[in-house]
Amino acid sequence: MSSEVPDDGSVLVVLSAPGLDPPAGLDRLDGRLAIRHTHAQGLADALPGAHALLMWDHFSAALGSAWDRADRLGWIHVAAAGVDHVMTPELRASGVVVTNSRGVFDGPIAEYVLALLLARAKDLATTVRDTDAHRWHYRENARLAGTRAVVVGTGALGRATGRLLRAVGVVVRGVARSSREADPDFDEVVGAAELAKDPDAVVGDADHVVVTAPLTPATRGMVSAEVLAAMSPRAHLVNVGRGPIVDTAALVDALQAGRLGAASLDVTDVEPLPPDDPLFAAPNVLISPHCSGDVIGWRDTLAALFVDQMERFLDGRPLANVVDLDGGFVPGVGS
Amino acid sequence: MSSEVPDDGSVLVVLSAPGLDPPAGLDRLDGRLAIRHTHAQGLADALPGAHALLMWDHFSAALGSAWDRADRLGWIHVAAAGVDHVMTPELRASGVVVTNSRGVFDGPIAEYVLALLLARAKDLATTVRDTDAHRWHYRENARLAGTRAVVVGTGALGRATGRLLRAVGVVVRGVARSSREADPDFDEVVGAAELAKDPDAVVGDADHVVVTAPLTPATRGMVSAEVLAAMSPRAHLVNVGRGPIVDTAALVDALQAGRLGAASLDVTDVEPLPPDDPLFAAPNVLISPHCSGDVIGWRDTLAALFVDQMERFLDGRPLANVVDLDGGFVPGVGS
Repeated sequence: MSSEVPDDGSVLVVLSAPGLDPPAGLDRLDGRLAIRHTHAQGLADALPGAHALLMWDHFSAALGSAWDRADRLGWIHVAAAGVDHVMTPELRASGVVVTNSRGVFDGPIAEYVLALLLARAKDLATTVRDTDAHRWHYRENARLAGTRAVVVGTGALGRATGRLLRAVGVVVRGVARSSREADPDFDEVVGAAELAKDPDAVVGDADHVVVTAPLTPATRGMVSAEVLAAMSPRAHLVNVGRGPIVDTAALVDALQAGRLGAASLDVTDVEPLPPDDPLFAAPNVLISPHCSGDVIGWRDTLAALFVDQMERFLDGRPLANVVDLDGGFVPGVGS
Repeated sequence: MSSEVPDDGSVLVVLSAPGLDPPAGLDRLDGRLAIRHTHAQGLADALPGAHALLMWDHFSAALGSAWDRADRLGWIHVAAAGVDHVMTPELRASGVVVTNSRGVFDGPIAEYVLALLLARAKDLATTVRDTDAHRWHYRENARLAGTRAVVVGTGALGRATGRLLRAVGVVVRGVARSSREADPDFDEVVGAAELAKDPDAVVGDADHVVVTAPLTPATRGMVSAEVLAAMSPRAHLVNVGRGPIVDTAALVDALQAGRLGAASLDVTDVEPLPPDDPLFAAPNVLISPHCSGDVIGWRDTLAALFVDQMERFLDGRPLANVVDLDGGFVPGVGS
């Protein structure tokens, strides 16, 4: 792999982290650019003169403090679907192109959501505990087909989730930026304004509310105390989007008071979630470690997607998955 | 509810058990027959003169010892899908009609199977244990779509399972009594003889082997030590049929030796499974208490199905779900 600046002068910075293997397949780019590998603390020194930045450590917030060293940066690629960690006001104002890894995670995360809904319907948590205790305790379970889900977010991930849930007989209402008449992936789509104005009408009849939205100024706190209060005491909240989309304090209160049936959270406000966080102690909670989309081989898939993007960049072809800097997501049909 | 013998003389015995509510909706039959409610120990006294027997306690084996008192019995209805508990040699020879509750459990059990496959793919058992321990331990998970399942049994339950698994992208091979060219619910159907003769060809490439067959002389021990040995060390055995279809001693050995990835069992040789049974202590085992089809409201569904059958019987119309006394299952398309 080349580490000299080639004739055409393109320089890529790869921001990684300790314990993280470098992206596979960068050797396909040999001779076409110089690559500077760095961790967070070296980012400020690596950025000057760089044209492109790969956020291979997609959780890093290091770009904020190093931003003024990005003197030639034209493009940032994030090895994740959510780009909230890089979306500073300075970046938004800069005109730098941001792309994400849309598409890699949609199918896996939709499957994870289905797994969480079925685990709740069949009460598999009790089955795990009973098996561990060598206990045979008969009880009935619930049917998933025919139940009602509200999917908050109708971007690529929300759509994959809607399609999969409908394939197993769940009735799915999407919450999009605005309502629309007909949609191929949802039984019904209502607007975010309706959720804020009349939460009971949107989530009151739901058995499951599934958060798939990206974190943006518009979605922060969108699943508010009012929305949680409008949910049925038997209902199940699933979050595979981002922690701050949900009012976590109100969520803990609702679970403790029995006003909400259960919560399965793959994302939290702070990650990793500290052991003494009240969420861990709330009843009927399942906390997974922000892994819903990370199926075996996912990093290689992400690397291949980046190499394709880098070749587009070097060839002067249009990049895929360009994020709208105002919205904080990739615009698309119904996103 | 009438307890006198009406003019037409029809007598129904309802075999129940302590703690089991009587079937709902029998009042629809008022005036058309006499109903004798009994538990196992009263069955011998209740049978003389009875024309019909409802095995409301479908696990009871009481009929065997009371059989010689069944002097006028023409029909037995079992409030379950599996009829193995009533299928004695005497019954087989008698010509008494046996019907089961086919159809009530298929959709719920298929969902349960999907829940078990997804729980394994996403390693939700570890997530439950980590949540209980307030532990955030990152790890990758597996994709279910694109994996391969073998479904042993292609009756109504096997078909519902095949359809649901294919709806989420699993490639499904059915094992039927005989192979066939094309089948709407499976990607491929092979014969039971092939499984016995060349298990590696049938289950060697499977990620999941799912037992949905009824227990009959032909299926007892069908998932033999040889079949288990042919499975991949990463593969997952799921049993929602009957315990004795699997060679349990060989299963425990395979799990303990790491020659099999995991087993999720809703049925076992002895039920309830005793706490000291080696199955409970085997690695990567999930034991559920024979509840896969028992979704909330299931007993009312079973009762309604029986009342419909009873009305057919009283009207002289053909009964539904008549079990083949030689095969031990309801014949049908591809069963």
